[in-house]
Amino acid sequence: MDWDTVTSRLNQMLAEGKTAQLRGALRMLNRVDVAQYLSGLDTDKMLLVFRLLPSSIASDVFSYMDDEQREKLIFSIGDREISRLIDDMFIDDAVDFLEDMPQDLVTRVLANVSPDTRDTINRFLKYPENSAGSIMTVEYCAFPGRLTVDEAMDEIKRTGLDKETVNTLYVIDENGILTGTVPLRKLICASEDATLSSIMETVFVSVHTLDDREQVAATVQKYDLLAVPVTDREGRMVGIITLDDIMDVVQEETTEDIEMMSALTPSDDTYLNTGIWDLVKNRLPWLAIMLVASIFTGLIISHYEGLLSGAALVGVALTACIPMLMDTGGNCGQQSSTLIIRSLATGEIAPSDALKVLWKESRVALLVSVVLALVCFGIQYLLFARPLDVTLVISGSMILAVMFSKVLGGLLPLGAKALGLDPALTATPLITTMADTCSLLILFAIASAALL
Amino acid sequence: MDWDTVTSRLNQMLAEGKTAQLRGALRMLNRVDVAQYLSGLDTDKMLLVFRLLPSSIASDVFSYMDDEQREKLIFSIGDREISRLIDDMFIDDAVDFLEDMPQDLVTRVLANVSPDTRDTINRFLKYPENSAGSIMTVEYCAFPGRLTVDEAMDEIKRTGLDKETVNTLYVIDENGILTGTVPLRKLICASEDATLSSIMETVFVSVHTLDDREQVAATVQKYDLLAVPVTDREGRMVGIITLDDIMDVVQEETTEDIEMMSALTPSDDTYLNTGIWDLVKNRLPWLAIMLVASIFTGLIISHYEGLLSGAALVGVALTACIPMLMDTGGNCGQQSSTLIIRSLATGEIAPSDALKVLWKESRVALLVSVVLALVCFGIQYLLFARPLDVTLVISGSMILAVMFSKVLGGLLPLGAKALGLDPALTATPLITTMADTCSLLILFAIASAALL
Repeated sequence: MDWDTVTSRLNQMLAEGKTAQLRGALRMLNRVDVAQYLSGLDTDKMLLVFRLLPSSIASDVFSYMDDEQREKLIFSIGDREISRLIDDMFIDDAVDFLEDMPQDLVTRVLANVSPDTRDTINRFLKYPENSAGSIMTVEYCAFPGRLTVDEAMDEIKRTGLDKETVNTLYVIDENGILTGTVPLRKLICASEDATLSSIMETVFVSVHTLDDREQVAATVQKYDLLAVPVTDREGRMVGIITLDDIMDVVQEETTEDIEMMSALTPSDDTYLNTGIWDLVKNRLPWLAIMLVASIFTGLIISHYEGLLSGAALVGVALTACIPMLMDTGGNCGQQSSTLIIRSLATGEIAPSDALKVLWKESRVALLVSVVLALVCFGIQYLLFARPLDVTLVISGSMILAVMFSKVLGGLLPLGAKALGLDPALTATPLITTMADTCSLLILFAIASAALL
Repeated sequence: MDWDTVTSRLNQMLAEGKTAQLRGALRMLNRVDVAQYLSGLDTDKMLLVFRLLPSSIASDVFSYMDDEQREKLIFSIGDREISRLIDDMFIDDAVDFLEDMPQDLVTRVLANVSPDTRDTINRFLKYPENSAGSIMTVEYCAFPGRLTVDEAMDEIKRTGLDKETVNTLYVIDENGILTGTVPLRKLICASEDATLSSIMETVFVSVHTLDDREQVAATVQKYDLLAVPVTDREGRMVGIITLDDIMDVVQEETTEDIEMMSALTPSDDTYLNTGIWDLVKNRLPWLAIMLVASIFTGLIISHYEGLLSGAALVGVALTACIPMLMDTGGNCGQQSSTLIIRSLATGEIAPSDALKVLWKESRVALLVSVVLALVCFGIQYLLFARPLDVTLVISGSMILAVMFSKVLGGLLPLGAKALGLDPALTATPLITTMADTCSLLILFAIASAALL
């Protein structure tokens, strides 16, 4: 059954007021799908349907709704309902939600949740943005190492269903310091009276609350973890970060990189949710900078005015090939910088590989530039019947411009990384402006020497 | 202790022949780090160190080594060692490894593993590349629904340690059809004589062996799953795909998108591992196509030769602003297409949103183009003291070129998606070529009308 059929059947039950049927039908859907269905309803209907949900899934569904819908919902329901909803949510989801809400709503929500939840949420809201602390969850199982397998199992039975993940147990000492991990399957397979200390794994990976979330994502990916424990300055365990949250981080960081590589200021929101003014603000500064940078190309062309308006055939040939040469230089630079930026992002190369990159790009550039120069020669000499000397100048400039752009494109991102800047910044705006300017300079330098 | 210190200490023990110490030190490292250490050694030493590893972790370490090292290792060790190594690996890791190896090595490996492993590997090697079947693992726990919680726990204790993940149990009927799922924490918290059927969740998400892996990744991300069951044509459960493998898929697909957006043929291998000829092969065709496409810009410029070489001041002004206008058009188009391509990739917008995109891009383009035209006017009229009429022509062309490029950049990726093509293809090569050509045409059309 496809999604359109599902929604039309649900809408029909809703329109006919068959709430019992609707309630039953909603129980057959995944919580993510229920949230998607609610997003398509207007506020009154959404509220009605939301109240039909069994309380066991209401908080989950709420986690998957979008901000606008959640804000409307919170404003429409009573204090007691708010309290139940937020208390039942996983802390990290509740914090995510509150971070994006207006202050009066946050105050109202915090006034209505249990003191425990309020304390935890407040602690979370204090972690710096993009830190490990701000994306971790506190719903995990940590036990002292002296507990036996049997005791730990009893404890899990008592509290486990409320935890976001119990796939790994964390073993802590009397000061709360993390000392080892026990995968749940190992716990199940161990003999009942073994202590956790005796079966725990002591080689484990952990991160710090203040670590940057991008660094945490790299660690989790490197070690293929499903969850990573988070410790505070004193080594005490304070939370875990699960792989599904890491996945979101990776997607967001990648989007940021891609946007920067296309000369856009990265935006936190989705395209359709971003307002016109924000879109303009994210695009205009870069375009204006590049426009101003093109003063250089204009200046260069004006400077060599004599060359362009001199002998008719030569001038026209040179003018006509300017866009071709500049485009090719820019494209070549972009190709190289893209490969290097992505390799830096996935941790495959480091600034210390600069020599390897230089050597590789030089050889690739030589091969590529010679072939492109031949194609260029064919187009200019055979197709457009340009004079031989002008054609040779253009093709020679092509070789140098491609070599220069590719080597620069390979090295600029490494330089940025070494200086602690974001390599993605060196992509389109910087590399194409530099490649453009230098391609022109090369052309005119060779043309002046050979044709005047 | 940083990584350089770790390796230098290990190297010292290795050089001094203190194998017992080295063995102890290796046990203190994460398996991923051991693999990284091995990758830095030459073949003889690598083999020596690898043989020091406890057999319980050797297969895991092997999974994390790079292809070149693994090939060398397999060629250097005996048949019995191969057999133990591969039999101990998770099937999906073993298949990944064999897919990238030369045929003679695959034959030798398959001749030495147990018949069960061989059958499974052979079955896997038959799934189409990029299908769900090719990335799934068969190490999961599936039980009939009539089993009680107690019986299931006993079964897990008997076999669980060999499974890649037992965080979720899968419930199947007598035909192997997947009927429900039981999270392990629910199993632990349930009463011992309840049957799996009575506690299983019947609303679950599954994928098909032949589904494209990109589609599987989208499903797993949408529903925030840690693992997804895979079923065959008859609905029988045949494997699971875990989130860490999905993460790899997402990273690879993103790299592909980014490379295509920069006019590169996507490569499966890492930058440093890709040979010169492959790098040339991935870059040259696109550069050549764009070079040939620039015949159009050359033709347009030649066609309007009269305009450029006519009145001296007009000709120079127009010539000097050609690169500026073309660059701005290309940059604007790239910004818009990047936003849309990324939003399509993350599933945030669909081709059916074309009208919304058109409306949004038009308004953004109007605002952006007016500001850019003013900047352009300032540069040309005030800074370069160009004639007023020429400056007005250039600024007016700027507005139209930006509007055109932004709207085109917004709609082209949606069109590609609707036609079943990869939207990333419409980025740099196509959009900049079209934006370049049209920006020039707009400039010359306005200039001819206004200045001749």
